[in-house]
Amino acid sequence: MSFQKLDELGHRIEALNHALAILGADEATHMAPGGGEARAEAMSALAGMAHRQAAAPEIADWIDAAEQEDLNGEQKAAISEFRRNYVNLTCLPADFVERQTRTRMRCEQLWREARGKGDWAGFLPALEGVIELAREEAQMRAEALGLAPYDALMEQFDPGNRTAEIAPVFEDLKSFLVDFVPNALEIQKTKRAQNPLRPLSGHYAVEKQRELGLAMMAAVGFDLTRGSLSVSHHPFCGGVPTDVRITTRYRSDEFLSSLMGILHETGHALYEQNLPKAWAHWPLGKARGMAMHESQSLFVEKQIGRNPAFWEWALPVVAKHLGEDWSMDEILPHVHHVERGLIRVDADEVTYPLHVILRFELEQDLIAGKLEAADLPEAWDAKMKAYLGLSTIDTPQDGPMQDVHWPSAAFGYFPSYTLGAMIAAQQWSAIEKDIPDVNAQFASGQFDAVNDWRRERIWSQGSRWSTPELIERATGEPLNAAHFKKHLEARYGQ
Amino acid sequence: MSFQKLDELGHRIEALNHALAILGADEATHMAPGGGEARAEAMSALAGMAHRQAAAPEIADWIDAAEQEDLNGEQKAAISEFRRNYVNLTCLPADFVERQTRTRMRCEQLWREARGKGDWAGFLPALEGVIELAREEAQMRAEALGLAPYDALMEQFDPGNRTAEIAPVFEDLKSFLVDFVPNALEIQKTKRAQNPLRPLSGHYAVEKQRELGLAMMAAVGFDLTRGSLSVSHHPFCGGVPTDVRITTRYRSDEFLSSLMGILHETGHALYEQNLPKAWAHWPLGKARGMAMHESQSLFVEKQIGRNPAFWEWALPVVAKHLGEDWSMDEILPHVHHVERGLIRVDADEVTYPLHVILRFELEQDLIAGKLEAADLPEAWDAKMKAYLGLSTIDTPQDGPMQDVHWPSAAFGYFPSYTLGAMIAAQQWSAIEKDIPDVNAQFASGQFDAVNDWRRERIWSQGSRWSTPELIERATGEPLNAAHFKKHLEARYGQ
Repeated sequence: MSFQKLDELGHRIEALNHALAILGADEATHMAPGGGEARAEAMSALAGMAHRQAAAPEIADWIDAAEQEDLNGEQKAAISEFRRNYVNLTCLPADFVERQTRTRMRCEQLWREARGKGDWAGFLPALEGVIELAREEAQMRAEALGLAPYDALMEQFDPGNRTAEIAPVFEDLKSFLVDFVPNALEIQKTKRAQNPLRPLSGHYAVEKQRELGLAMMAAVGFDLTRGSLSVSHHPFCGGVPTDVRITTRYRSDEFLSSLMGILHETGHALYEQNLPKAWAHWPLGKARGMAMHESQSLFVEKQIGRNPAFWEWALPVVAKHLGEDWSMDEILPHVHHVERGLIRVDADEVTYPLHVILRFELEQDLIAGKLEAADLPEAWDAKMKAYLGLSTIDTPQDGPMQDVHWPSAAFGYFPSYTLGAMIAAQQWSAIEKDIPDVNAQFASGQFDAVNDWRRERIWSQGSRWSTPELIERATGEPLNAAHFKKHLEARYGQ
Repeated sequence: MSFQKLDELGHRIEALNHALAILGADEATHMAPGGGEARAEAMSALAGMAHRQAAAPEIADWIDAAEQEDLNGEQKAAISEFRRNYVNLTCLPADFVERQTRTRMRCEQLWREARGKGDWAGFLPALEGVIELAREEAQMRAEALGLAPYDALMEQFDPGNRTAEIAPVFEDLKSFLVDFVPNALEIQKTKRAQNPLRPLSGHYAVEKQRELGLAMMAAVGFDLTRGSLSVSHHPFCGGVPTDVRITTRYRSDEFLSSLMGILHETGHALYEQNLPKAWAHWPLGKARGMAMHESQSLFVEKQIGRNPAFWEWALPVVAKHLGEDWSMDEILPHVHHVERGLIRVDADEVTYPLHVILRFELEQDLIAGKLEAADLPEAWDAKMKAYLGLSTIDTPQDGPMQDVHWPSAAFGYFPSYTLGAMIAAQQWSAIEKDIPDVNAQFASGQFDAVNDWRRERIWSQGSRWSTPELIERATGEPLNAAHFKKHLEARYGQ
């Protein structure tokens, strides 16, 4: 029976992916510094095995045959994700993938060196090589999938997302934000004049911050028997659903950034820990995609963790662990601080989308051949000035050299961040309707009802629906920027 | 070229073994408790992949063909280890291995339950099943390797070791120890009467013990850029040569047991860290076997770590980290404490070999069919009385239910422990000749010359020689119990 063969294949791939996930998390947290070369060799060999097994030619026949078999609804859904996965995996010829991997890895290495020095001229030829291959890749994916080239790239990260649907929503959000950011900053200024900011600085022992983090993780639903918190240079959520590894980094002079980071990664972790167990070894059992994943992390960080109601419960918890007694009037201005800046990863929830929309617009033009890499510094600067009133023309490290995404050929990924923020706000709107006392629940440290809501509508669905379908099924309507705008207005516009 | 095919196979197997080693170490140190089931599934699937790839039928042809190719000396040695490895891997039919794995795993599970209760009657049928299959296994291995059945089992752990050579050496050691143990205990008693033991008890913070352990590891040669120390329930040395994971467990009321454990595991680690890099992905590049590995751990623990000269240097280091000032007369009686006991893993270096020789004798009879499992409690008790003057007849958990080795079908492994102790002493004799001021070096914290000696003669040789060949090449003579006896007499007999 062909379905059985695919099911067994799923177990083999799952074993390799389990190893890759744990080896990857281990590398960032516990590996000895000298272990990197052998680790890279081992992981690349394991990834090669996983790819060869998942992309073997006979699998196409198994999928065709399985579709004719007498399957239940879940199995049919599993087959359709096996097919989507297989097509996305096999639509590029092996020699192209090898060429692209080499080009991309050289560009990433060069980027690490050149970014620090702001050496755009030294970096440009490598980036040009990556873009040229990304255009080829988009073309090949487009033909295999029957999609437009940029859509075919996005399809890897968020199945079902299409520029035709996203671009107008982003356009709408952009015009809103270009006016809203200065207003929010003005409101913040007025408030600060009346109520000056009490600095959060102090000395917060790492071990106490860690205990606070673990207490918050557990409170919002992280299952500590199936996951852990450790330290890494860049925070991440990795591992496997039965053993989710989240990390943070601590500063001893300030606790809020680490705590918010832990809540963000906890949001990712909740999605992983609550995926359907029975489908764990099928593509169907994975989280839907990057935008949905980011919506879950941003929900915990922004809709829960920066919600004033949450802080009514959280302040005494912070005080208990850190021994410092803040009032709501002192903590909330930090939690809701807005600031124009050059760096996306440092941006707050008000300015962040403009960083993403800028990249979304530029990378569409790059893939379409309407923009060349050499023209990026000017194009970036022009949009940065128009959207945030800042210039990057003299500091390419703050402009097109800022992120690893382009050097590593991840075109089509950036939209996921802001789609995630919008989906999180849209979820919040739906939850406010279904659970009218949700804020009161947060204020008393109750997160079960909200987690049940998300488990039923999102987490338990795995990859059963496309991203737009899942948004609509979970929230009752298609992606709608109105919820995110309403959220920003309520929190920052008054 | 067939050698090339074997070389590439080596890289693939190495990647899987790398993953298995890190996943195994991770499981004991950092895995979330709920991660065990998925981890076991993933590891068993990866082990299956490694086995299928390493045991594929075409490999026999590659090895035959490679032997006819124009190879250098290293490559010829590599082929001969590829063949040894292949024959040992493939000499049991797959259906037998499956049956044995099931039987063994059931017996191990039962052992974990039954041991605590001392439930020999409940455990016996499962052990009988394992022994029956071990006899079959020994017969099949014997036919494939042209060896006697018990020798064929030992061959898995220590290639080249033969009962005909080991049994007389053990017999010699046993008669020595049966007299020596009471003498050593008498001498100890007399000394204690003159110089009462000052207890080592106190409160030693785990973090300080850890720093002391790391300082000692680094001093005796552990490369901290290619390995680490963490905590696990059972101490072990795992990981890969570029990232060796050693573990310990700490008691806060006593520091010596953890420190000695760390030195023991560091001995294993030094062997791994200093294996020949260029051969890392061939069977030739692995450590020679269990006896040689144990000889390296026991060398660091017993020949270095319990050497009075070492303590001249180590005492101030301990004082610096733990803040407690011991004199040599206070610490050495603890370092050299001898005590008759029922439990092998708790035994000191004087009594330990009698525990091993007892098991070596019994398991030979078990495999030969001269002894049945049902008769083990009586047979064990009789030997225990004769060798150590202790009885286990009423506590089978202290007798034949003591170790995991038999439930897990590892017959032929026990001799390695005492062979390791003898090889370590024999190495020490050879080193004393080659480095006459070795004790003075230890007393000033110098371990480089001893490590260079071991690196050249043992670590860098990988699996190039059989165990007896390696012993003779490294120390200038075949295995000889005289060195170990001399060592015990010098340390405990005066």
